[in-house]
Amino acid sequence: MDTDTVAGWLSREDLDSARERLPIVYVEAVPVRVDDQGAVTEVGLLLRVRPDGTISQSLVSGRVWYGELVRSALMRNLEKDLGPLAFPRLPASVAPFTIAEYFPDPAVTGLVDPRQHAVSLVFVVPVTGECQPTQNALDLRWFSASEALSDAVAADMSGGQHRLVRMALAHCGVAV
Amino acid sequence: MDTDTVAGWLSREDLDSARERLPIVYVEAVPVRVDDQGAVTEVGLLLRVRPDGTISQSLVSGRVWYGELVRSALMRNLEKDLGPLAFPRLPASVAPFTIAEYFPDPAVTGLVDPRQHAVSLVFVVPVTGECQPTQNALDLRWFSASEALSDAVAADMSGGQHRLVRMALAHCGVAV
Amino acid sequence: MDTDTVAGWLSREDLDSARERLPIVYVEAVPVRVDDQGAVTEVGLLLRVRPDGTISQSLVSGRVWYGELVRSALMRNLEKDLGPLAFPRLPASVAPFTIAEYFPDPAVTGLVDPRQHAVSLVFVVPVTGECQPTQNALDLRWFSASEALSDAVAADMSGGQHRLVRMALAHCGVAV
Amino acid sequence: MDTDTVAGWLSREDLDSARERLPIVYVEAVPVRVDDQGAVTEVGLLLRVRPDGTISQSLVSGRVWYGELVRSALMRNLEKDLGPLAFPRLPASVAPFTIAEYFPDPAVTGLVDPRQHAVSLVFVVPVTGECQPTQNALDLRWFSASEALSDAVAADMSGGQHRLVRMALAHCGVAV
Repeated sequence: MDTDTVAGWLSREDLDSARERLPIVYVEAVPVRVDDQGAVTEVGLLLRVRPDGTISQSLVSGRVWYGELVRSALMRNLEKDLGPLAFPRLPASVAPFTIAEYFPDPAVTGLVDPRQHAVSLVFVVPVTGECQPTQNALDLRWFSASEALSDAVAADMSGGQHRLVRMALAHCGVAV
Repeated sequence: MDTDTVAGWLSREDLDSARERLPIVYVEAVPVRVDDQGAVTEVGLLLRVRPDGTISQSLVSGRVWYGELVRSALMRNLEKDLGPLAFPRLPASVAPFTIAEYFPDPAVTGLVDPRQHAVSLVFVVPVTGECQPTQNALDLRWFSASEALSDAVAADMSGGQHRLVRMALAHCGVAV
Repeated sequence: MDTDTVAGWLSREDLDSARERLPIVYVEAVPVRVDDQGAVTEVGLLLRVRPDGTISQSLVSGRVWYGELVRSALMRNLEKDLGPLAFPRLPASVAPFTIAEYFPDPAVTGLVDPRQHAVSLVFVVPVTGECQPTQNALDLRWFSASEALSDAVAADMSGGQHRLVRMALAHCGVAV
Repeated sequence: MDTDTVAGWLSREDLDSARERLPIVYVEAVPVRVDDQGAVTEVGLLLRVRPDGTISQSLVSGRVWYGELVRSALMRNLEKDLGPLAFPRLPASVAPFTIAEYFPDPAVTGLVDPRQHAVSLVFVVPVTGECQPTQNALDLRWFSASEALSDAVAADMSGGQHRLVRMALAHCGVAV
């Protein structure tokens, strides 16, 4: 989850209050580079401050706003995190390849968000343009598919998100 | 969407208030009967009062509660709508086959819920036991796959849900 | 299925002989145009002579050759049918959204290929460039998503392929 | 791939000849145990002689015969490998969660079958009954999901099949 400071139609107090009582809908994207036959070659990760206070490699992510379509939320968050020239190609199907369920308590699913219970729709999104990490991100780095599956990269991720990278690559036919 | 009167961890006022400001997470299930090789033979629809006040054929549906896993919400709502002896078999993957986005305004997606913006995770769920429509439902009826795809059945559904039935059957390899 | 006259590593006699004894692996693509958020707007169909002798609207399709990757077969057949400037974007996952099983006997699945038992991996493929129908195709025509779902378009397709168009659109969240 | 000695509608010579010239269609299943909410708890692997001559842990697998439906081939091979009392529950959708492409040359995809180019449709299949490894298998063993993802189990598999186990579990939301 992103440390989104933009509340989107909600005051900070209202959002905090809702977060104590309702699951919050998120979208997440695993940005990838693909070759000319569509096979994944690289995975992009953002270095940034995470909700748990660590500085970690993380996915593109953000809330779905009231009244907003999932596709629009995905595009908005991709642009927020990768800049306006990333040219992401959303999949033709709006079904996420997996659902990530985040809880404050690490014992529930292993995916942790200290702020809230979040239900996140996760997508693999090829990007073809120039990525410039923007809001909140310190850096964007591309990893080869096998690097992205390594324990070293996993150790640089927090809240269990490295598992989403592994699921995303497995979904694309890549496993070690 | 179900006319769920059980608020689940929220007072009615709090839920109403949240519904005006945040998308609400739902799960929906298209209950099916399958043959001994797993192919869909029948679709089960519930006759009940819908949020728009019509009496319509509808899917199993309900909110995901704060702190609740998607699988648990799905099981709870299947039991709520089909009774304790339906023996639903949830798929091994927690990824929904589609996402249904409901809005009060019919012009957005064609899926309508006058109460809220809902993001619904939709699953096809084989049930093997005895179904007894319970809470709020007047009747449960089984339709052959081709009946379920007919315009007659579509006319008995409201809020655009007949499209979810068609997508569910297409996902299972059935189309006319 | 395409009336592919290129045998690909096999003499015509050998292919005919194999077709009587083994299921043949095919790939098929439903070419689509998408908007800037990835949602399907149009479906492309090829007018051509089909294996059953009719002139019908049909999908991109062709055999997977011995030694050829599924992705390569898909790209080769897209180029064969849509020309070299179509710029298809293969999905990041190599899993087909459905399997189409063709038999000479229409009673088995409703998908008919008089030449063979074919197991076809079917994909939705956004194309972004200029399409020029090439080998064997008389014309390529783009239909809006709702036209593509109409009975009129279904009547112009043969061998049950209109059902694959409907499944493809349902997979992309489009149904009537 | 199984060392299937049953040729199924083909003489051994004819099958050998076809294997040199055409990709052969296979189905594979990752047998799993699930809890009462459908989540995967265990993975079943068969100890047997593989096409490469090793004795390895392997998946349920076998050819699709001429004239045979994919669902029927899957059921036939599950029964062949797990016995008649395994009670497998095939998914409602016939779309495989991934495609495995086997080649004699390990450099192509890392999935190896010395006999042939095989295109394999891979499914996760919950089994609920008593499994008795039958034809050709020396043993069937159940592994917890985390054991099944371990390097130790991977080392006991050959031809790259451990990657299919990891993809299957990722598809079901399980990754380490």
